[in-house]
Amino acid sequence: MIASPYLLYLGHSNDEVGIKTSRGLAVFRPDECVGEFRYDDCPLTLNLPRLGFAEAVAAGAKTLVLGIANAGGRMGADLVADAIAAIEAGLDVASGLHHRLRDEPSIVAAAAKHGRKLHDVRDPKPGIPVGNGKRRAGKRLLTVGTDCSVGKMYATLCLEQGMRARGMTADFRATGQTGILIAGSGVPLDAVIADFISGAIEEISPARDDDGWDLIEGQGSLFHPSFAGVSTGLLHGAQPAALVLCHDPMRAHMRGLPHYPVPGLRETLEANLAVARLTSPDVQAVGIALNTSKLARAEAERLCAETADALGLPCTDPFAMGVDPIIDRIDQCFEPSPRVATLSN
Amino acid sequence: MIASPYLLYLGHSNDEVGIKTSRGLAVFRPDECVGEFRYDDCPLTLNLPRLGFAEAVAAGAKTLVLGIANAGGRMGADLVADAIAAIEAGLDVASGLHHRLRDEPSIVAAAAKHGRKLHDVRDPKPGIPVGNGKRRAGKRLLTVGTDCSVGKMYATLCLEQGMRARGMTADFRATGQTGILIAGSGVPLDAVIADFISGAIEEISPARDDDGWDLIEGQGSLFHPSFAGVSTGLLHGAQPAALVLCHDPMRAHMRGLPHYPVPGLRETLEANLAVARLTSPDVQAVGIALNTSKLARAEAERLCAETADALGLPCTDPFAMGVDPIIDRIDQCFEPSPRVATLSN
Repeated sequence: MIASPYLLYLGHSNDEVGIKTSRGLAVFRPDECVGEFRYDDCPLTLNLPRLGFAEAVAAGAKTLVLGIANAGGRMGADLVADAIAAIEAGLDVASGLHHRLRDEPSIVAAAAKHGRKLHDVRDPKPGIPVGNGKRRAGKRLLTVGTDCSVGKMYATLCLEQGMRARGMTADFRATGQTGILIAGSGVPLDAVIADFISGAIEEISPARDDDGWDLIEGQGSLFHPSFAGVSTGLLHGAQPAALVLCHDPMRAHMRGLPHYPVPGLRETLEANLAVARLTSPDVQAVGIALNTSKLARAEAERLCAETADALGLPCTDPFAMGVDPIIDRIDQCFEPSPRVATLSN
Repeated sequence: MIASPYLLYLGHSNDEVGIKTSRGLAVFRPDECVGEFRYDDCPLTLNLPRLGFAEAVAAGAKTLVLGIANAGGRMGADLVADAIAAIEAGLDVASGLHHRLRDEPSIVAAAAKHGRKLHDVRDPKPGIPVGNGKRRAGKRLLTVGTDCSVGKMYATLCLEQGMRARGMTADFRATGQTGILIAGSGVPLDAVIADFISGAIEEISPARDDDGWDLIEGQGSLFHPSFAGVSTGLLHGAQPAALVLCHDPMRAHMRGLPHYPVPGLRETLEANLAVARLTSPDVQAVGIALNTSKLARAEAERLCAETADALGLPCTDPFAMGVDPIIDRIDQCFEPSPRVATLSN
């Protein structure tokens, strides 16, 4: 587990896409983020207090999160120097970069000297078992997609927020580096050895008997020729009771592959249900999540309504419009979870 | 590439299943096997000359193949001592064991001292690309299965033999450690990182324009909850023009999973064709391969005939009965390959 609260690193970043991990933490774990670290030339902000390393420690921060992606995933000299300064100030360091902290001797030496922990969240833990497909207790929901990077992580985290707001027990299970930093644990599925894909998911979403939901972050797409193996193993390992299909209506072709069209929603849903049934025969689709961030609100609402009609499932943009329609459907399809008493009851 | 010819190691083995890699080499690469190395307590034989290491070198052997699997995949002290003795006698060493040669310092030191090569065939080569799904030239056939270990490698190698016997150009592409040792190259697909499964197959079966066939060894099964991700990426990376479905009629349940029944042949074929169509829209099934080694010949022939009738595809036991019906179907479905002139023509 990565110790929180966090100081979020922006450094010299000037590209919104490059700070998506830091932003994801600020959006979904605001209570665990005490501040942001950025230089004067960084035009971006997460609207958190701007803190130096010593100030962050004084404010309670435990870990500096290098929640950025730079070209090539390498750590430049600036980044290395900052990581060492953070360690010297008393912070652990967590990174989702391709270039591992453990491969940078000066960072490793500083951490050893000061007794701080380093977290390379792209490294799967050793000892992942082969999947066994045994039916296990508990309710699990998996987000699946027409393509990569269509909003599966955001949809899953919004569902966690929405279910918890209704007093349901729900836990996000991370399968990518940003999700792992947000959750504090999980498995970087794309870095797992092929034979252990489904086993890795069985491990992070073990049997549960508390009537709560595991909400598992999907990866890739059954229709992406590069990554469908990952998506298949994820479906089998998850044993999902419920699927939510995620889609970006502005996507012109499969990510990175101009020669592959985006599949239809119905086709995608049917294929995912068919694969999921191997380990979870009663799996049901419970909703569609659209990423409408590039559409005007009225058009987004119209598209959601049309999609809901066409597929006979609730459809929403989880981030912009909330997840109530999907949770309502979950309540219809599954025995409602006992609600934790809240003050308003 | 692993230098041939080979000396095949049996050591103290007394379990036929444990020597399947050495036997595979003896069966499919007899011209490249000069002998077998075994102790007096080994009751098994490949019907090759029994040779010591120096004798094998004198007979032209270049590589000792540790084609055995022992409990836990570890190398005991005996095996380590034998590997070092072989190196000292002038042999390279190749191993498909889980326990890597490179992780045994005494073997590494001996190889360095004597200038010999070590081959851990379970180690994927570095630099495997992400798959791109771009249509590439050439004809590729992939074997798929109802389950793991139903004879996909044997069927693929028998097809190579049979096609070559007819003067066709055909090349086995290995995806498992035994196949890699037989072919001298290939990719150990189960050890590849999840994001690179399809890319690994694209790499070992690149575009070809000589009208020959790449015959790709299948792995796992779309219906095996532990390994279907591997099978999915393999289907997408292979871009197969033709599929051959392999099945063991004696299999009572999915390998290692008593709680999972073996899927039906038609269901398996349809699922594999559907997945394959993403990258190879015109893919066709060209035959069924049954492993009838545990059946009486008459019963085996009856079962093949019944299966052929039921599925409308040629059905044979490739190892016991040959592959002619499947090659005939390939000739019908695809423009016949130009035949290399043979002496009998």
